[in-house]
This record gives sequence, C-alpha cells and structure tokens, in this order.
Amino acid sequence: NSKLKIFSLNSNKELAEQIAEQVGLPLGKSSVTHFSDGEIQINIEESIRGCDVFIVQSTSQPVNENLMELLIMIDAVKRASARTVNVVIPYYGYARQDRKARSREPITAKLVANLLETAGATRVVVLDLHAPQIQGFFDILIDHLVAVPLLSDHFLNDANIDLENAIIVSPDHGGVTRARKMADRLKAPIAIIDKRRPRPNVAEVMNIVGNVEGKTAIIIDDIIDTAGTISIAASALIESGAKEVYACCTHPVLSGPAVQRIQDSVIKELVVTNSIALADEKKIDKIKQLTVAPLLAETIIRVHEQKSVSTLFD
Amino acid sequence: NSKLKIFSLNSNKELAEQIAEQVGLPLGKSSVTHFSDGEIQINIEESIRGCDVFIVQSTSQPVNENLMELLIMIDAVKRASARTVNVVIPYYGYARQDRKARSREPITAKLVANLLETAGATRVVVLDLHAPQIQGFFDILIDHLVAVPLLSDHFLNDANIDLENAIIVSPDHGGVTRARKMADRLKAPIAIIDKRRPRPNVAEVMNIVGNVEGKTAIIIDDIIDTAGTISIAASALIESGAKEVYACCTHPVLSGPAVQRIQDSVIKELVVTNSIALADEKKIDKIKQLTVAPLLAETIIRVHEQKSVSTLFD
Ligand SMILES: Nc1ncnc2c1ncn2[C@@H]1O[C@H](COP(=O)(O)O)[C@@H](O)[C@H]1O
Ligand SMILES: Nc1ncnc2c1ncn2[C@@H]1O[C@H](COP(=O)(O)O)[C@@H](O)[C@H]1O
Repeated sequence: NSKLKIFSLNSNKELAEQIAEQVGLPLGKSSVTHFSDGEIQINIEESIRGCDVFIVQSTSQPVNENLMELLIMIDAVKRASARTVNVVIPYYGYARQDRKARSREPITAKLVANLLETAGATRVVVLDLHAPQIQGFFDILIDHLVAVPLLSDHFLNDANIDLENAIIVSPDHGGVTRARKMADRLKAPIAIIDKRRPRPNVAEVMNIVGNVEGKTAIIIDDIIDTAGTISIAASALIESGAKEVYACCTHPVLSGPAVQRIQDSVIKELVVTNSIALADEKKIDKIKQLTVAPLLAETIIRVHEQKSVSTLFD
Repeated sequence: NSKLKIFSLNSNKELAEQIAEQVGLPLGKSSVTHFSDGEIQINIEESIRGCDVFIVQSTSQPVNENLMELLIMIDAVKRASARTVNVVIPYYGYARQDRKARSREPITAKLVANLLETAGATRVVVLDLHAPQIQGFFDILIDHLVAVPLLSDHFLNDANIDLENAIIVSPDHGGVTRARKMADRLKAPIAIIDKRRPRPNVAEVMNIVGNVEGKTAIIIDDIIDTAGTISIAASALIESGAKEVYACCTHPVLSGPAVQRIQDSVIKELVVTNSIALADEKKIDKIKQLTVAPLLAETIIRVHEQKSVSTLFD
C-alpha cells in the first residue's frame, strides 16, 4: 500500500493544516519561495517516491500566482516519482470563463483543466464548481464535492433561526438546484430572484418569485464576489416583507467593495466556507466561516484507500 | 495567402509597436484587463479567422501574470479560428530552471514549453535562450534568434571604443560560445572568467583566464539579473590590468539591487536589448538599450511568407 502525503502551497495554508490534522498526518515538508526576479522556486524536502501525493491549493486571488505555484508543484511531484499526483482545489478560479459568451473569448476554465493535466495531475478534487459541466473539461478523474450539507447543518443547528418560517432563496435561475437541495434539508420552501432589465441601460429590477412575507429568508449562492447582487437581493426581500435575511455561499471571493457592501447591507449574517482564506480585514463579525477540512480529509482518505467518495457528493 | 496579424500583450508594448511598425501593419485590436478578483479578461476586437497571428509577449517580471496572459490569449486566438498561432517570446522566463540540479526539483522551463503547446501555440519565436537545449523542450516549430550581431554592431560602430585593443570576456564557461561569436565579429581575442557560485543570485571568487592587461574588456552575457556577477567580474578585470570595461547582454532582467550595482560598478556602459522593457527607474545613463524590433519583424515576415529564417540565427 502506498504512503499518503499531503502538501500545502501558499493560497490556503490554514485549511491544508486542518486537513492534515484531520487525516492524522503532518503536512509534507516543502517550501515555495521566489527568486529575485519573481520566478517561483519550489523545494520538496522529503522523499515522495511511490507515494499518493495530495497538493492543497485554491486558485483564488492572486489567481495567476497560485495557479503557477500549483502547476510547478505538480511538475516537481511527478518528477519525484510519486505514484499519484492528486490536486485538491477547494476554489477553482477562472470557473466563470467556462464558455464563449461573445466572439473570440477564451474558455479559460477549460484551459486551466488542460494545464493541470499537462503538468501531470492524475486526479482532481474540487468543491462546488461554478458550473458542474466543468467536470467534463477534465479527462482525468475528478471528484466534485458540495458544501450544501455543511451550510445547511449550520442553519439547522443555529437556535436563533426560526426554521418553521424559513424560505431558501436562489439569487438567480442558475442557482435553483442548489437552493432546492438546501430547502430539502431544511424542510423549507424556495423562492427565486428573477433579475430583469426592463429596457437597455436601465437598472435591473429584482422581482421575487415566491412569497417571502413574514419569512426568514436564506439566500444561497456558490460564489460571492463583489457582493452587488446579494446585497440588492437582500433589500428586495425585506421590501417584499421578509422578516430577516441571511445569506450563505461556498466561495467567499469578496473582491473590491464586497466586505463594505455586506457590512452595509440588511443581511444579518453571511455564512461562508474556508475554500478561500479570508484576509484579516475581511474577517468581520457578520461573516461566519465554516471549515471544509473534514469533508476534504474524508475525501483524501477514501481516495487513498480506493473507496467510493460518491456519498460525499450531496 | 493568409493575412498577417500582430497582437501585443502587456509585458512589452513598446517593442510590439516597433515590430508592427517595421512590418508595416497596425497592431491587432485587443484588450487585456482584470476582473475585480484579479482574473485576466481578454478581448480580441477584430476578426482573425484564417489569419497567421503573432502574439508578442516576454515572460519577464511579473512572470506568472505575463505567462497566464499569454496562455489565455493563445486559447482565445486558437478558438477564434486563426490559421496559425505564433508566439514571439523575446525573453523566455523560467529558462534557468531547465534541469534537475537537485532532487525533487521541477523543470519549469519544460513545463512552460508544454503549457504553451497545450494552450494551442503552433510556433514559437525566441531570442537567446539561456540554454539552447530548451529548443528541444518543444515539439512545435521553434525559431531561436540571437542578439550577438546586434550587440557586436553597436561596439563596431561606437567610435569611442578602441577596437584594436578590445578583448571579449565570457563571465562563465557556459557563455564561451557566445563570447567567441562576438570576438569573431570584432576580430578580438577572448578571456574567460572562471568563477564558482555557491547559491543562486550570489556571485563568487573570480579568476581570469586570458591576458586583459591594457585592454578594453567587453563582457558579454545572456541574462543580467541581480548584476552581482557582472559587477564583481568588472572589478576583477580592472584589477587584472584592463584599461576599461564595457558589458552587454541580451536580457536585462535587472532585479533587486541590479541597477544600483551597475551604477556603482566600474562598468563604463552596459548595452542591452529591449527583449525586456525597462521600467523608468531602470533607465540610467549607463544603460544603453538597443531594439530587437527589426530582427523580430524580419522573422515574422519570413515565417508568414514561408521563407527560411535560418540566416537570422547567427
Ligand atoms: N472573474 C470574473 N469576475 C466577474 N465576471 C466574470 C469573471 N469571469 C468571468 N466573468 C463573466 O461572468 C459571466 C459568466 O458568469 P455566469 O453567468 O454567472 O456563469 C461571463 O459573461 C464572464 O464574462
Ligand atoms: N529566476 C532565477 N533566479 C536565480 N537563479 C535561478 C532562477 N531560476 C533558476 N535559478 C537557479 O539557477 C541555476 C541555473 O543557472 P545556470 O547555472 O546559469 O544555468 C539553477 O541551479 C537554479 O536553481
């Protein structure tokens, strides 16, 4: 039986450490530094010959730096005679560039899949891809985990929330399946926010499909980036009679004005996972971060022991 | 006959403009911007269907950003039905990671070659690779240009230099072939600096093989990075009796303390090419930048017209 080794890169060391602890192993010894000209220098400081190696790295901001770290590490691990090169990418960057929406656009989500394979990855573990179709961009094995159970459990266990009166809200039509899954777990109905632009160059109107009057609304999304949509959606819910609004998402990208917008919004609490590490200035009281380490650790153990991981998929 | 289009990315726009001007075409219309979360967004704003497209980009600092721009642009160009996707990389970053010098090291120069091919490049034009063997890392066509003629002509045309007494100096054993080529053009003898380097970016003890007494020494190298080696070498030459010291290189990486070291050194003038754009604070009087635009323009025209480029190789 091959030995299991887990390595962290720079995007999300805390999560990698939690995963290693859950698996019951120290993190593999390695260092990622830069030469004077900014080129990445990777040193793997222990033998990995014949091992099942798992590399933990989100391709979150700075995305190009983090992606190159990952590609170079995969190359180094492959050349060091690892048996398998598994990459755990809790947040898969560039996922929103997954199709040609206009002429002459790149499909960067597919490019990244190809780059990972070319570098030498033999298996990929991801969490809540922006579009599940991105699984098909890979010719190598891919495990697609979901955070709905973790997020749902948080609300199920929060004594302050009146679950009798909860309603799960999808912020767009693309997110209805996810909202439906959460609604089933919370035994709640769903509502959908139907964004419409009445005329070109006129602000979008948020039209709520479903009755939120007197309800505790819980918005669920996969990514919250600039938080524009979510904060406007929350106001629209209150205007439509919702008693209070919670929000949750898997990936707290939270770029630009996002944290300020969350702070200023009517949202009572935003629940996120640690697929993306939050810089200190993003750690505000309103944002509650849950760890996906147990889910990823369980996946790593099952993959290593060649057991099925499909029960972790919803 | 296909149409020729030349696009610039962000690393070296001035060079790309010079190339386009020499070729007699406007640069292709495109934009490279960033989304709020730092992901690269590329727009190609004119049709390139059936065209021979040339993308000009050095993978200089910030290397990971510039490399990802290039890969994403290649993907976009390929998907926009270009006939050929040619990448002109005047400075090929990561070239010094071209072998496993220690256990478990990556070979990033090979990884980058694979990434370019995977993205969809059909041909690569490079200038003075740190090791000519990197040509063999590509399965696609590669044109390897050299800057020795350009650098040599500069000294041949500089009336202030006493060419009768010139000696061409290679700063290490790896550079002797290059120094020999320059020496042939300048009809000068060569000397070699015999040094040992303990760690990257650190220079060491210098022993000069060859008689430099009373001579005008011209050091030639491919890359000047932190300028440690070159400035110590220059002092060693003066100590060994050289009358004055000039230096030249193809790629002015000039990272960290480099510019200050050049400024403080005994080097009279450092002649470089514009394979890497110099930030304003690096443009000091002592550094003279020559343009490789005519060489690259000629190469692009010949490749497009399916003529031989081999006469440009030395
Ligand atoms: N990093 C990004 N930030 C914001 N928008 C993006 C990003 N990447 C891609 N997009 C755009 O988001 C759209 C896809 O998002 P969606 O409709 O939610 O799948 C595309 O039209 C892209 O142009
Ligand atoms: N960007 C870089 N800056 C400084 N040293 C580097 C860089 N990339 C690789 N190296 C080191 O340079 C050595 C190769 O340089 P050379 O002997 O000149 O071919 C290797 O031992 C590398 O570890």
